[in-house]
Amino acid sequence: KRQQEQANTILSLSEVLSETTQGDLSARVNTEEWSEEFVTIGLAINTLIESLEYNVAEFKNAIDRFNKIKEVSTTLLAERDLKKVFEKIIESACKLTDSELGWLLLADEKKEYYTVKAVYGRAQEMKDYQMRLDGCVVGKCIINRESIIAGNYTLKPGKNIIPAKVIKEGKVRDSETVIDYTVATELKIGTVLGIPIIADGEPIGTVTCYNKGGVKLGEKVDVQPQYTQDDVEMVNLLSVYAGIGIATTSYIDELRKREATIS
Amino acid sequence: KRQQEQANTILSLSEVLSETTQGDLSARVNTEEWSEEFVTIGLAINTLIESLEYNVAEFKNAIDRFNKIKEVSTTLLAERDLKKVFEKIIESACKLTDSELGWLLLADEKKEYYTVKAVYGRAQEMKDYQMRLDGCVVGKCIINRESIIAGNYTLKPGKNIIPAKVIKEGKVRDSETVIDYTVATELKIGTVLGIPIIADGEPIGTVTCYNKGGVKLGEKVDVQPQYTQDDVEMVNLLSVYAGIGIATTSYIDELRKREATIS
Repeated sequence: KRQQEQANTILSLSEVLSETTQGDLSARVNTEEWSEEFVTIGLAINTLIESLEYNVAEFKNAIDRFNKIKEVSTTLLAERDLKKVFEKIIESACKLTDSELGWLLLADEKKEYYTVKAVYGRAQEMKDYQMRLDGCVVGKCIINRESIIAGNYTLKPGKNIIPAKVIKEGKVRDSETVIDYTVATELKIGTVLGIPIIADGEPIGTVTCYNKGGVKLGEKVDVQPQYTQDDVEMVNLLSVYAGIGIATTSYIDELRKREATIS
Repeated sequence: KRQQEQANTILSLSEVLSETTQGDLSARVNTEEWSEEFVTIGLAINTLIESLEYNVAEFKNAIDRFNKIKEVSTTLLAERDLKKVFEKIIESACKLTDSELGWLLLADEKKEYYTVKAVYGRAQEMKDYQMRLDGCVVGKCIINRESIIAGNYTLKPGKNIIPAKVIKEGKVRDSETVIDYTVATELKIGTVLGIPIIADGEPIGTVTCYNKGGVKLGEKVDVQPQYTQDDVEMVNLLSVYAGIGIATTSYIDELRKREATIS
């Protein structure tokens, strides 16, 4: 019996090792018919393969993000029309994060108000909408240069302070944010991702995406897609190029206007 | 004795697995004192860890490249002065590839001649130098939109055709290229990396780097650093943003000149 057990152990080990070496990181050893003294080893091998599977997936995700952003940023930066730059940024951000709707906001110089410059998905009527920065999710993004994700909240009329996660330089912490009742209920906003746009070193606005996977206000988000740190990292990378695109195209716009005034 | 061997086998397996799980992919099992039936398994585990070590290093390299290019491209694209854009591109390309010298060339519209627009390292006198595209390494880059690496050649007076590797869309093939004897010997050019710059879909010039690790003409490059596919991929990524930067800044230059003419 003992010899049979050892033969089983060796056989299943070699099988799993061969699959893993060929790149199939989903293979696991089944220690049920193993000789006792090797069970701990078998489980350790499984833990090893598991952590490698996770790491490789993480690496692939990161490279995938970079490649997507390369695509998007090069299209964006080749654009010379400011309105189209705004539209491309928010469209890309929403598509990259599978968001149902979103908008790009720019703040005024004193950072008291924001204006919606471009809209993706439903809510086209929000275009040119103006609001106080401190009355909404995006205020914090702009003022503190933080990214924010929120979801799984209920709203009542009046001022709503909801729980949120705040991400700065890769670190996540629990926090809260203000959400505008009227806008959120009218547009059925269920989940939120807000990323600051930095241009020439200054926060100038945000990319704000809503309803990842189409989840709406009041729908359970526990079993539904929510914004993740991957989303934050991807849109953050996008917004670096977005900031440059906006700054450059604004400058071109200014030169064109000056030329038009002179001639 | 047999029991002692099995105990050794289990001990050394657990040690290596524990180190590997904690992220040290340099650990290997030593099968010398192992019981015979497990030696094959031990070697398979070593092969597995080895291939994982290689893969993880490759992933890290790729992410490292992307992060470096993010840094460099954002600095580059924030620049509004065309001359400085040229200088930043070639400086970044040379530093990223540890090249001793390099230059950025733009071709004329008919793609017959090129002009050196910016120089890094030695050979500042090459600035504004003009040459026929078909007389040098870079011609092929521009005309075929290919990247090129060459090294380990000897030169004699007159026309020199040297072996080279050509890379297009990630695929490497053996080829050859023409090198200018006078320039190469005067500047002691020992190894070459040439990458096309594409702007608005058209090849407009090249980023050309020389002497990785300081290797000069006539020095043995077998035991010295040579340009690798990693270098090609990195400078290719850089040159995507370089193309956009040149196109945008040229456009801004034009607007400024028009404004100056009008007023």
